[in-house]
Amino acid sequence: MAKNLKPKPVTAQQKWVYSFGHELCEGDASQKNLLGGKGANLAEMSRIGLPVPPGFILSTEVCTHFYQNSNSYPVAIELQVDSGLRQIEKEMGIQFGDIKKPLLLSVRSGARVSMPGMMDTILNIGLNDNTVKGLGDDRFAWDCYRRLIQMYGDVVMGVNRDHFEDLIDTYKRRNALKLDTEIDADGWKEIVTLFKTLVQRETGTPFPQDPHAQLWGAIGAVFNSWMTPRAITYRRINNIPEDWGTAVNVQTVVFGNKGDDCATGVAFTRNPSTGENKFYGEYLVNAQGEDVVAGIRTPLPLTEMQKQMPEVYKELDAIRHILEKHYKDMQDIEFTIQEKKLYMLQTRTGKRTAPAALRCAVEMVSEGLITREQAIQRINPASLDQLLHPAIDPAAAKNLLAKGLPASPGAATGAIVFDSDEAEKLAADGKKIILCRTETSPEDIHGMHAAEGILTSRGGMTSHAAVVARGMGKPCVAGASDIVIDYKAQTLQVKGQTLRPGDKVTLDGSTGEILLGEINMIQPAMTEHFLTLMQWADNARRLKVRANAETALDAETAKKFGAEGIGLCRTEHMFFDPTRILYVRQMILAETPEERRSALEKIEPYQRQDFIHLFKIMRGLPVTIRLLDPPLHEFLPHETSEIQALAKALALSADKVSQRIHHLHEANPMLGLRGARLGIIYPEIYEMQVRAIFEAALAIKKETGDTVRLEIMVPLIATKREMDILKEMIDRIASTMEKIDYLTGTMIELPRAALQAGIIAEAAEFFSFGTNDLTQTTYGISRDDAGAFLPDYQKQRIFTTDPFASIDVNGVGELIKVAAERGRKTRRDIKLGICGEHGGDPASIHFFEKVGLDYISCSPYRIPIARLAAAQAALANK
Amino acid sequence: MAKNLKPKPVTAQQKWVYSFGHELCEGDASQKNLLGGKGANLAEMSRIGLPVPPGFILSTEVCTHFYQNSNSYPVAIELQVDSGLRQIEKEMGIQFGDIKKPLLLSVRSGARVSMPGMMDTILNIGLNDNTVKGLGDDRFAWDCYRRLIQMYGDVVMGVNRDHFEDLIDTYKRRNALKLDTEIDADGWKEIVTLFKTLVQRETGTPFPQDPHAQLWGAIGAVFNSWMTPRAITYRRINNIPEDWGTAVNVQTVVFGNKGDDCATGVAFTRNPSTGENKFYGEYLVNAQGEDVVAGIRTPLPLTEMQKQMPEVYKELDAIRHILEKHYKDMQDIEFTIQEKKLYMLQTRTGKRTAPAALRCAVEMVSEGLITREQAIQRINPASLDQLLHPAIDPAAAKNLLAKGLPASPGAATGAIVFDSDEAEKLAADGKKIILCRTETSPEDIHGMHAAEGILTSRGGMTSHAAVVARGMGKPCVAGASDIVIDYKAQTLQVKGQTLRPGDKVTLDGSTGEILLGEINMIQPAMTEHFLTLMQWADNARRLKVRANAETALDAETAKKFGAEGIGLCRTEHMFFDPTRILYVRQMILAETPEERRSALEKIEPYQRQDFIHLFKIMRGLPVTIRLLDPPLHEFLPHETSEIQALAKALALSADKVSQRIHHLHEANPMLGLRGARLGIIYPEIYEMQVRAIFEAALAIKKETGDTVRLEIMVPLIATKREMDILKEMIDRIASTMEKIDYLTGTMIELPRAALQAGIIAEAAEFFSFGTNDLTQTTYGISRDDAGAFLPDYQKQRIFTTDPFASIDVNGVGELIKVAAERGRKTRRDIKLGICGEHGGDPASIHFFEKVGLDYISCSPYRIPIARLAAAQAALANK
Repeated sequence: MAKNLKPKPVTAQQKWVYSFGHELCEGDASQKNLLGGKGANLAEMSRIGLPVPPGFILSTEVCTHFYQNSNSYPVAIELQVDSGLRQIEKEMGIQFGDIKKPLLLSVRSGARVSMPGMMDTILNIGLNDNTVKGLGDDRFAWDCYRRLIQMYGDVVMGVNRDHFEDLIDTYKRRNALKLDTEIDADGWKEIVTLFKTLVQRETGTPFPQDPHAQLWGAIGAVFNSWMTPRAITYRRINNIPEDWGTAVNVQTVVFGNKGDDCATGVAFTRNPSTGENKFYGEYLVNAQGEDVVAGIRTPLPLTEMQKQMPEVYKELDAIRHILEKHYKDMQDIEFTIQEKKLYMLQTRTGKRTAPAALRCAVEMVSEGLITREQAIQRINPASLDQLLHPAIDPAAAKNLLAKGLPASPGAATGAIVFDSDEAEKLAADGKKIILCRTETSPEDIHGMHAAEGILTSRGGMTSHAAVVARGMGKPCVAGASDIVIDYKAQTLQVKGQTLRPGDKVTLDGSTGEILLGEINMIQPAMTEHFLTLMQWADNARRLKVRANAETALDAETAKKFGAEGIGLCRTEHMFFDPTRILYVRQMILAETPEERRSALEKIEPYQRQDFIHLFKIMRGLPVTIRLLDPPLHEFLPHETSEIQALAKALALSADKVSQRIHHLHEANPMLGLRGARLGIIYPEIYEMQVRAIFEAALAIKKETGDTVRLEIMVPLIATKREMDILKEMIDRIASTMEKIDYLTGTMIELPRAALQAGIIAEAAEFFSFGTNDLTQTTYGISRDDAGAFLPDYQKQRIFTTDPFASIDVNGVGELIKVAAERGRKTRRDIKLGICGEHGGDPASIHFFEKVGLDYISCSPYRIPIARLAAAQAALANK
Repeated sequence: MAKNLKPKPVTAQQKWVYSFGHELCEGDASQKNLLGGKGANLAEMSRIGLPVPPGFILSTEVCTHFYQNSNSYPVAIELQVDSGLRQIEKEMGIQFGDIKKPLLLSVRSGARVSMPGMMDTILNIGLNDNTVKGLGDDRFAWDCYRRLIQMYGDVVMGVNRDHFEDLIDTYKRRNALKLDTEIDADGWKEIVTLFKTLVQRETGTPFPQDPHAQLWGAIGAVFNSWMTPRAITYRRINNIPEDWGTAVNVQTVVFGNKGDDCATGVAFTRNPSTGENKFYGEYLVNAQGEDVVAGIRTPLPLTEMQKQMPEVYKELDAIRHILEKHYKDMQDIEFTIQEKKLYMLQTRTGKRTAPAALRCAVEMVSEGLITREQAIQRINPASLDQLLHPAIDPAAAKNLLAKGLPASPGAATGAIVFDSDEAEKLAADGKKIILCRTETSPEDIHGMHAAEGILTSRGGMTSHAAVVARGMGKPCVAGASDIVIDYKAQTLQVKGQTLRPGDKVTLDGSTGEILLGEINMIQPAMTEHFLTLMQWADNARRLKVRANAETALDAETAKKFGAEGIGLCRTEHMFFDPTRILYVRQMILAETPEERRSALEKIEPYQRQDFIHLFKIMRGLPVTIRLLDPPLHEFLPHETSEIQALAKALALSADKVSQRIHHLHEANPMLGLRGARLGIIYPEIYEMQVRAIFEAALAIKKETGDTVRLEIMVPLIATKREMDILKEMIDRIASTMEKIDYLTGTMIELPRAALQAGIIAEAAEFFSFGTNDLTQTTYGISRDDAGAFLPDYQKQRIFTTDPFASIDVNGVGELIKVAAERGRKTRRDIKLGICGEHGGDPASIHFFEKVGLDYISCSPYRIPIARLAAAQAALANK
């Protein structure tokens, strides 16, 4: 076991075993850590008087003790198990190992959370060659016995389970039988003998006849299963500490397979697909739990039970209401009916779809079961994606080509295309297109706009393709490394298959799946329940939610989803418009400030118009505009033909243009001439932008009377002096115009800016944390290149989450905290926001709430998620 | 005046004026801030009884008051100036403005530090149409008078100085005279009249006849000169606060031009070129100070004075000894002899060459003038470069082609070559070569080795070329942006000139100058004085000094210069060797761990041998070996021909090789798959290196019995888990070998590592701050790309120094401090070092001393600088 587990001192009085039942109930639902999930709920149901077969629980502390003491049990355990057993015998009025009327037990594992790889169930413990006769000596009794040997032989004694099935199959063949149900008492009796021989042969040990030996064997098997490779792997992946341990549930066996007045079933207290408040479940007459799962017979719906066993149904329905009232949530239950008597074997919170979760939560509030705050906390914010994007019909057949990263949620079908111009052309002809690229660049924006979905073979969750697709609300599968796109050959190769332009694929951006052909979709809808819950969330949250948006379409979408302003308008996105890219390039290739200014003069009217559109949509709301940020070479063409076209348009030689492009090339553009550095080196660019912003705001004011709540943001500040110089420029331009209100602020996206925040705040009126770049610089990881090692890093648990998706609280988080504190110390009312990808991530939003930021800003399609997560964070922080 | 200057309250008693002289001396040398440098030393000389003409000083506070109060003087000033004046009159026994025997005054500026742009001197104040007669009414008197009008008219009244010279020229032409000395009393008298007319015509005001008006005019001119554009610019560039202000020195004029028993001269108390303890200076008989400067007559050496004026010389030589004893440093003095009487007009610390500084410091210690500690503090560490590298003969004529960054000190001459292979070939033929590249890459290492010096047109002080050249101790001029290198055309164009291969140039890597042709050099030598001082420094310092070195040559050089171990052995440098680069490339292009391992097996013997060499040289000293750090694509070829050659060697298709190279391409390699990430993704590479290190250490032990003090360093750690995984690997390999001692540590070169240092120290036994990368990530600046804006950033004072050359104490420094604190908190004895470029920078070393690091590591040629700077830092920190 892990070295960091230090044995706790054991006292003589320490309690290791907890009874539950009608007469004595020593645990409750709050003790999941001690009793495991299943055990705690069994105790709870007993406690509130529901019909639970009595039993006892060996606590998780036994497991911990077991592994801390070289796989040995605490001294007191045998006595305590005996005492638990006596309590069961007392309540049931029958004895374990009694030949006449034997008590049979089940043993099940039960960790805090349900965990694959753990031992499931051993039923019918207590049966042996003698007690089987006490059980009835009939077909039922021998069937039970052979099931015990089979399960026990497999799980406890390690006999290959196929051997048992082979013996049954051989028996049926020899006797010309088809189904297990056709085997009679003698048949099972003969099979029991065969099974016992098998166990002896395979293990060198006979199947244990002593019921207590059986019981301890089963208990030991549960504890041993905590350390199976599968359980260890699962814990590692899901970050479950080893020292949580598992509990063992020992419980009286009841039989749903003892005749036609017996049954077993599972149910949800409400419909888990829709959330409708209707009892929803199914059952099988004369069957044991495993038969329901095995799917040999088709279970009946509960409505049938209402007709067939009206009394029992009534009791079950009453329990359904008791459970919901008690747990205040939709429950997933298991029950068994033995000779018309109903027994509850399990209850737990029911899994549900996103629409069902919403409906349950909202309706439970109106039913008075839960408060609005509880309703808000019930919904997983990430699940809202299901409501906002088309999804693949779960029932549809799928032909999986490959898997990439689930980079932007939703699903889409279309014909593959490798070129953005081509994509645009085909889309204009009404074709549905999936744009497939090695990776995308700002030059692909029009192709991405035209496409239904985007597929890249390189890049991570925050690659250009992923970020832009999320902004557009289009599905995107990124970094599908199994796919090889060959632009020259116009082929997409994947695991031996070759696809060509026009071939149809379907992308599931929520799972990262790339599927061959067209597949049925479920269309999204903003339901009444959704709108109600979002309103409650809005009332509960403290953080404002803004959008990262620059186009009119983005801004409209953002507003529709409830954005309270724009937190990040990336002006560079406006530069790529075909109407102006030529002037932009002319500006970049200019060799003197004059040439540059003349090109900028041509861009300015467009920029002004862009801002006018944006301000109109966002009237009255704050709009943060970031001045030009990316390195200029991002705007330049790379292909020879494009360079030639540009040279012609600019009346320059292609050589000259190539030279200048080469000159602008950078080794690490992320750390190069960009952001505020552009504004310092080429002030005329920022001057043009600032002028366009102010003129647009004044034009709106003149036209509509609306005041724009302007926030001008300078990117990539590392020193106060940069901020001083650029603020002076902005103020200077403002001073030449009609009076206008605005704030000047900066992104905090470099470690140095975070550390120097106290001083920078002397000049900056707001901070917006650019957590993408801050993560890149703090970690020293380029998100464009992280794909080469991120998967390995996650596999080796160096990263438990992708730091570009969910904020690294320890490293990047410390810088954010420090910057917020220092910024506020200098300027008490400094406005603090965040506009990186993390603005739409619930875990990160919890952190931002704790640090006390004023707002978060995210891509339009993540706004509902952000609103809900912000509400949850506020409630959690109360 | 600047807004941040707040007026101080003025009290009636406040002292503004300080007298100095024989009878009353109110200031001393410690009051430079108040009295300015010149004034404080005049007062000091008076105080210790040297013959200084009496005078008084208007303090710098007058200047500050003047600018804080709309250019007005404090109320009390007139009375205090009057009183100062009366004190002079009393001591001299003559009166200011007296017609019979007028006292004449000089007015000079005097800031804390000497500053270009400030008013220099106005002599002979007090002369007018009447007093001139009292002075003698002779040629001397009228010459003095015209000098006053000329200086005063120019400096105080703003008359163009050329007009005065024109009038003198016209006079001489009219009277057929050649030299000013030929003008007689009447001539000067006539010129005085012309000058007065000129002043009246040009300014509309007559030349002031009132001596007090003259005095106040001159004082005002000094204060006004504090705000001339030239003074403001100088202050800005040199970071001199505006509120320091300047003092004004008013002093009795003495005349060195009153006859042949008069003289004026300047001297150093020791030889400023060699440091020899011999009086060194020159003088002119019958001359005023300005005549010495004007250079019309050749001054005589002081040895001549010893013969001509033995009495005066004796007095002067005595003063020389008094001054040295008093100031405990070599002095630069000015003196005047009037009628055989010696007057001291200035003393200040004498400027000197680096060898002179060393000799002075060491000899002064043996003379008992100063302590060893003072001697250590006397030497500017950066100046040692002059002693370690060849320098251009200061007397040689220079033809400057262009200037770049002084990237690696020293000078070299050679024929230009554009290609590293060609450079190597020509150097093998005995040719001296200057390698000229747009920028260099690791592929140029052999060319750089072969060259005498390196010139690049791109890249900053920490570009590849600069760093490698400093490591090799070769001169380098980097980022010479005026130079255009065209590889195809094989030309180097600079300001219209075209140079071709074979043309000779000379580089001065200490100044950044690129000169045409061959130029005379002075060769370096490690003198006895140097060795003595370095030994003292070693005794005084706390910081250990190690070298960044990997080749045997580097290691030998480092040891010669006093390195106490290797702080950074960059194993990747070993990969470029032609004997193994093919295997390295094979390793990189491998597609399976097996292929990779088989290539690594071929590299391993070489690596082991490299380490054996290194360990032998460094026996007994610690050696820190950094595992592979750079992105793998740095090792791959880029040119088509090289790719084809590689493909052939590897029996792969060129397409395949190109594809794989393309696949390894990164958008931001600095932030990509490198450092520890390589060790995680391709463990077999690090395994090979670690094995080679251990085997080499064991081989040495076997051969020589020496134990190697091994420190294995993992680069680019961002999380503790990376360190855990790699430390486990290192320990695992060690456990398969004979017992060997070693430490495992990490570079702290990412902001996150610095913040998480407390946790990382649980696994790391030492930290070495990689301040190059830490600066890159903290600032978000790629040093390869910074050239595009760094010069502008320095011009606009965003950076007062290049953060890659001198540590950014506020930002990067905070991270280093935090990391050191947190690391020590976890592991009290953690070893802390630094191995970035900053390890050889004196200012940075002061910071590292303050933070309490254990050692600094720098390139071999900077080790003496580091040793001295470390000693100074230790002394300053005492």
